[in-house]
Amino acid sequence: MSLAHSLICGCLMRESTEDTARFLEYPGIGLVEWRLDALHGIHTRNGLDEALAGLSLPGRHPVIATVRPERFRGGFRGTEEARIRALERTVRAGAEWIDLEDDLPEDVLSPFRDSAARVVISHHDFDGTPASDPLKHRVEHLATLGAHVLKIATYARTVEDNLRVLELIPFARKQFGAETIAFCMGPTGRWSRLACLLMGSPWTYVRFPELPASAPGQFTVAQMQTLLEIVGAG
Amino acid sequence: MSLAHSLICGCLMRESTEDTARFLEYPGIGLVEWRLDALHGIHTRNGLDEALAGLSLPGRHPVIATVRPERFRGGFRGTEEARIRALERTVRAGAEWIDLEDDLPEDVLSPFRDSAARVVISHHDFDGTPASDPLKHRVEHLATLGAHVLKIATYARTVEDNLRVLELIPFARKQFGAETIAFCMGPTGRWSRLACLLMGSPWTYVRFPELPASAPGQFTVAQMQTLLEIVGAG
Repeated sequence: MSLAHSLICGCLMRESTEDTARFLEYPGIGLVEWRLDALHGIHTRNGLDEALAGLSLPGRHPVIATVRPERFRGGFRGTEEARIRALERTVRAGAEWIDLEDDLPEDVLSPFRDSAARVVISHHDFDGTPASDPLKHRVEHLATLGAHVLKIATYARTVEDNLRVLELIPFARKQFGAETIAFCMGPTGRWSRLACLLMGSPWTYVRFPELPASAPGQFTVAQMQTLLEIVGAG
Repeated sequence: MSLAHSLICGCLMRESTEDTARFLEYPGIGLVEWRLDALHGIHTRNGLDEALAGLSLPGRHPVIATVRPERFRGGFRGTEEARIRALERTVRAGAEWIDLEDDLPEDVLSPFRDSAARVVISHHDFDGTPASDPLKHRVEHLATLGAHVLKIATYARTVEDNLRVLELIPFARKQFGAETIAFCMGPTGRWSRLACLLMGSPWTYVRFPELPASAPGQFTVAQMQTLLEIVGAG
């Protein structure tokens, strides 16, 4: 089972737009999640426009635009309306993907579903990992929201937590035909960020070595490249 | 969670006793499973004595002595009595561990349990991976046989097979206080050979780069060392 570097998604968490091009064109990865909520300028129209100019770079990777709100430990401090408007502008600026939280109402989701960008519906649980049934019900709910990819990330307290979350990947595909990224955050969940690819997730999130992690337990780009080369060597 | 190289068990599968010392003293691993059934000389008394001289090497790793019978795809073609006698001689020669198949009768097992060697009771399923309940009943049975470590290796046909087998590691510890090595063989199970350590297995089996694998899907020593360094870096 060969594991290509295209399965690697670098997380761009940066306060300034300096060097944006370098990360959007980073070698040996497949796509970039741009955590726009980390940008100082995100809260002003010009600040966001200046950043989104990066999306017109010809040789860049596909971008997942994310503006994570404070309720999911993100950096966006504006109103929810302002956040949604920012997300809309990232789609107009050419982001191929957009990450939307699973607690958003249908009237917010549906225009994005019909937009040019593909949708990742994401659920994060930073406190722990529920039992198997609530996790499966969560997947069932996410699968009704019409996303192209589901993302579930919970915090691992025990080693078993990883297995219940990894199980969601084949479960979602079989039950709902849904492509799913499911892994555990934190040191005890770190290895599931590799295992999720082997279970069938379309990509895994990694840290650019020069930048902070966007969630606990992330590997660097180079570490994940090495892991994929070894484990995929068959 | 740091992952030491001592969790790595090299599998010595070799027809001759040439270079035995090099493998028994191999750098950066914790122990060696010596597949004595691969030795041409195993079927003669002198042949085995010549090999077992290697156990008197002062600087060697702890050795798991294994004489795998044909019914478990091993190379030993003699009678079962001859095989048990060979195993007895490996214990007398100083092997720290002995690997015994889980279909052995109590009258064969009990002298080994009382010997100087610690016992690994192993179950192999080269054809596939049973459902969760039969796997757990298997663990329950193994746990009654008085081994120091249980080993369960099944063949992965689907990605989910890995999760059911990995789950046995914390299950066996919680239910029976048993240290368990549980992973899946084959390309689809390859990653579970790393994941089992993260789930709590006391070691994982790897291939010496110069020698054939003793089971499908094994990493080399160097590959596993790199995997542990990255995944354990936390």
